[in-house]
Amino acid sequence: MHVMPMIVQCRALRARLAKVIFAASAALCAVSPGAALAETRQFSMIIEDTILKLVDKQTFHVFSFNGQSPGPLFHVKEGDDVEIEVENQTTLPHTIHWHGLYQRGTWKHDGVPDVTQPAIPPGETFTYRFKAEPSGTMWYHCHVNVNEHVAMRGMWGPFIIDPKDPPPVEKEVTKDYIMMFSSWTSAWAKKPGYGGVPGDVPDFFTINGKAYPDTQPLRIKEGDVVRIRLIGAGDELHSIHIHGHLFEVYAKDGRPLANPYLADTILFGPGERYDLILRADNPGIWMVHDHIDKHTTNGSSPMGGMMTTIEYEEIPVKEQSFYKWKNKEFVPDFYYEESMKKPLDMHESPAFKGDPAP
Amino acid sequence: MHVMPMIVQCRALRARLAKVIFAASAALCAVSPGAALAETRQFSMIIEDTILKLVDKQTFHVFSFNGQSPGPLFHVKEGDDVEIEVENQTTLPHTIHWHGLYQRGTWKHDGVPDVTQPAIPPGETFTYRFKAEPSGTMWYHCHVNVNEHVAMRGMWGPFIIDPKDPPPVEKEVTKDYIMMFSSWTSAWAKKPGYGGVPGDVPDFFTINGKAYPDTQPLRIKEGDVVRIRLIGAGDELHSIHIHGHLFEVYAKDGRPLANPYLADTILFGPGERYDLILRADNPGIWMVHDHIDKHTTNGSSPMGGMMTTIEYEEIPVKEQSFYKWKNKEFVPDFYYEESMKKPLDMHESPAFKGDPAP
Amino acid sequence: MHVMPMIVQCRALRARLAKVIFAASAALCAVSPGAALAETRQFSMIIEDTILKLVDKQTFHVFSFNGQSPGPLFHVKEGDDVEIEVENQTTLPHTIHWHGLYQRGTWKHDGVPDVTQPAIPPGETFTYRFKAEPSGTMWYHCHVNVNEHVAMRGMWGPFIIDPKDPPPVEKEVTKDYIMMFSSWTSAWAKKPGYGGVPGDVPDFFTINGKAYPDTQPLRIKEGDVVRIRLIGAGDELHSIHIHGHLFEVYAKDGRPLANPYLADTILFGPGERYDLILRADNPGIWMVHDHIDKHTTNGSSPMGGMMTTIEYEEIPVKEQSFYKWKNKEFVPDFYYEESMKKPLDMHESPAFKGDPAP
Repeated sequence: MHVMPMIVQCRALRARLAKVIFAASAALCAVSPGAALAETRQFSMIIEDTILKLVDKQTFHVFSFNGQSPGPLFHVKEGDDVEIEVENQTTLPHTIHWHGLYQRGTWKHDGVPDVTQPAIPPGETFTYRFKAEPSGTMWYHCHVNVNEHVAMRGMWGPFIIDPKDPPPVEKEVTKDYIMMFSSWTSAWAKKPGYGGVPGDVPDFFTINGKAYPDTQPLRIKEGDVVRIRLIGAGDELHSIHIHGHLFEVYAKDGRPLANPYLADTILFGPGERYDLILRADNPGIWMVHDHIDKHTTNGSSPMGGMMTTIEYEEIPVKEQSFYKWKNKEFVPDFYYEESMKKPLDMHESPAFKGDPAP
Repeated sequence: MHVMPMIVQCRALRARLAKVIFAASAALCAVSPGAALAETRQFSMIIEDTILKLVDKQTFHVFSFNGQSPGPLFHVKEGDDVEIEVENQTTLPHTIHWHGLYQRGTWKHDGVPDVTQPAIPPGETFTYRFKAEPSGTMWYHCHVNVNEHVAMRGMWGPFIIDPKDPPPVEKEVTKDYIMMFSSWTSAWAKKPGYGGVPGDVPDFFTINGKAYPDTQPLRIKEGDVVRIRLIGAGDELHSIHIHGHLFEVYAKDGRPLANPYLADTILFGPGERYDLILRADNPGIWMVHDHIDKHTTNGSSPMGGMMTTIEYEEIPVKEQSFYKWKNKEFVPDFYYEESMKKPLDMHESPAFKGDPAP
Repeated sequence: MHVMPMIVQCRALRARLAKVIFAASAALCAVSPGAALAETRQFSMIIEDTILKLVDKQTFHVFSFNGQSPGPLFHVKEGDDVEIEVENQTTLPHTIHWHGLYQRGTWKHDGVPDVTQPAIPPGETFTYRFKAEPSGTMWYHCHVNVNEHVAMRGMWGPFIIDPKDPPPVEKEVTKDYIMMFSSWTSAWAKKPGYGGVPGDVPDFFTINGKAYPDTQPLRIKEGDVVRIRLIGAGDELHSIHIHGHLFEVYAKDGRPLANPYLADTILFGPGERYDLILRADNPGIWMVHDHIDKHTTNGSSPMGGMMTTIEYEEIPVKEQSFYKWKNKEFVPDFYYEESMKKPLDMHESPAFKGDPAP
């Protein structure tokens, strides 16, 4: 790891400080009787050059948000006024688009270069201000050279807006997981500013930036009502299969479906989000994976990529001699499931941090 | 541009003449009191070798319909008897399949070589006769060597059949846009009769035959009820995202859904059609683009391909200094939106014309 | 064809014998008054190295089930207790996953190596025991190195579970077809144990293991209620178009949809299943094909791959001079349609048999 130059350290410090100050004011708000009302929430993010480990020895030069990819979770309430200061510490221009948000009256905060704003130049800052609506599973990503920055440089994160009046099923949820899917062309791993062109051969495939076996299990128990939020963040399609259960396809692009339907496999494309409700009624260890088989390789090695498992706590995994993950060190919050239980805020996750690029 | 040989000019003239004669007879029909009844409509199309400009310097040898790709709009009413004379002036065999039409009692007019008819040889003519049913967003395309002619030679156009009894929401529509999506492998641009084979690398991506920035904005105003008809005409999948709005997924393959649903991104494959209803309630300039990021490149240059914008007339675009299209010359009817307002007929569009192939 | 070594013959014989014994016991069961109750059904399958012909001269080394790919049809009733002995006669490890089945209380029979069991080594046998639930169109496939074994070695077959209380429309069905879609990279045809890696170029595309013109027509008649079960078995997406009809999208992943919808083209991904209901009301000869155009090539030759036709018996095909298949030798049961009419059992199909690998 290299030493950060002083100016970068200062900027990072300033950003952290701003967050602390906001956290304090948010705490004050939290005790007010009007906690259910819309609040103003202020956050800040720094875009940095970061080396992210996808799996084993495979690293990738990404443009991270506060040092992590996927980026921090924004978890707010419908109607909140949100203010996000974005500082670009990389050497390339960027913007942030808040995918799925209405931006009523704030179209210049939609984050599209040459359409709603000039791109944020290196070293500059832009503050996005908008109302958090509509509710549901949204996400954010850069909108400059999306074929590279979004498809292959990890510039995305989840933006969850809780509804003012959640439907009954949402109140039943006991575990809330977020999965962002993306693919990577290793030939461009060390060449930021290039790649994402026709003819590329994606050869690494990740959930929340990691490929199996460096993904993490979903640990649940019988009786759990599990919500899984699938986000097509990268450039490929995915056909996600969960073993041993039928799940309800509950919401599309953040909107609950009037007519949810059951499935065991769901196909989606880049930009789409599907929220699944899975009622945990079948103890076991179950695969969760992309059924596009080539997405379960790491380079040309089989049985990697977009695979993970559901582990029921009723099954003692350490006793399953054949289980590859029987002695795996568990990393919590890998699907933002711990962050989703915390108060509304911007939440960073150590699991997604990389190292500063040299 | 090359001089057309005399025989080609004559044929083209004959075709134009036939159209004029029909237009006159259609005009007569239009004044009759039975205008709501099924009518017999006669059209003619010539398949020609044409050089189409996709964007900037990138041209492609297509097999055009009346000199344009996408082809002319057929706009008729459910139950009409349609007769279309197709003359093949290229050096390769072709047919026309009317995708989505029942062809009840007329299966030999379904346009599949070696299944419903012999292909139309070069220099020959075939007249398709069928009833226009069912209603909805249909399309037509060649069915010979589809991997080349449909996937990469632009042999397709829209075929819109108005329902006899339109559902209420269709009567509300104030703007009606048609978007046909296709991809192109530039390595085959100048080699008609070849290409569309495994291993091809598509590197240009167009809406109605043009790539950004040579696409056109959708100009709407607050209060508009906008219908957007998406047609998967080429060989790739698309995940179309519209910023700043939720749209209603209203119809699939021409059939209104019993249970429409809301979305901001929609995935579809070749041959599929989706009709979206977007209620214009959020003035701004908004991106519309394929979220399969590689489809927003022109060759290996980023920020091209399948991108366009929605411009609300409430926003003075010329005053937005950062807006790439602030001084763009607007080409109307690029999404057939003007043709869709005209009386039922076959409508050609200057925007889609190419130059005769040398 | 090569002579099978003695040991292989013996094993094959044993498997056939086991089946005969079971068939006899099943016959006994069939006459019992409790035939509607759940039954215990025992089957056996051998995984073998087999050379499968895809089309014309193109063969492929597959790992077959009882010598065929796709594998035998399992047709059972919801709630049946199923026992399947699987013997691995290849030189590589395998498992069988029963895609879509709950495996309640039997998660160790879900067939995932290193998660629910150790893979079955060459020469070894594993017996899967589970309850057949839920009902619907399920399938089975190997779960070892899926990028090769599933995507490209033909290790899959249909597993149909009849519901205890079928919805009315299912009782109307007169023809029941199963279509499994897969793609093949010919560069790996003769290299079992390799392939299925990023950069592969699939160049053969099959329905039930054969490419057009070696597929078979669906022979129906006016008034038939046709059920078509689409299964994404390989690694590509498909956009299947049926000419001349709107079909009802009746079930997804085996579950009848609360809100079926009409379509003429349907997109699906690997692992997904869609059941279509098509009411035969339009005599003719109609194309059925993947609208992803590149999937209609055989190598680089056009008009092959995933294409077939529906032939109405009201149309005398031999009299259609232009019809490519007018003198085609018809192979029944190519879509398991004959097997689906037989009593519940495991059904092998001569149409899918290959030759033992040398």
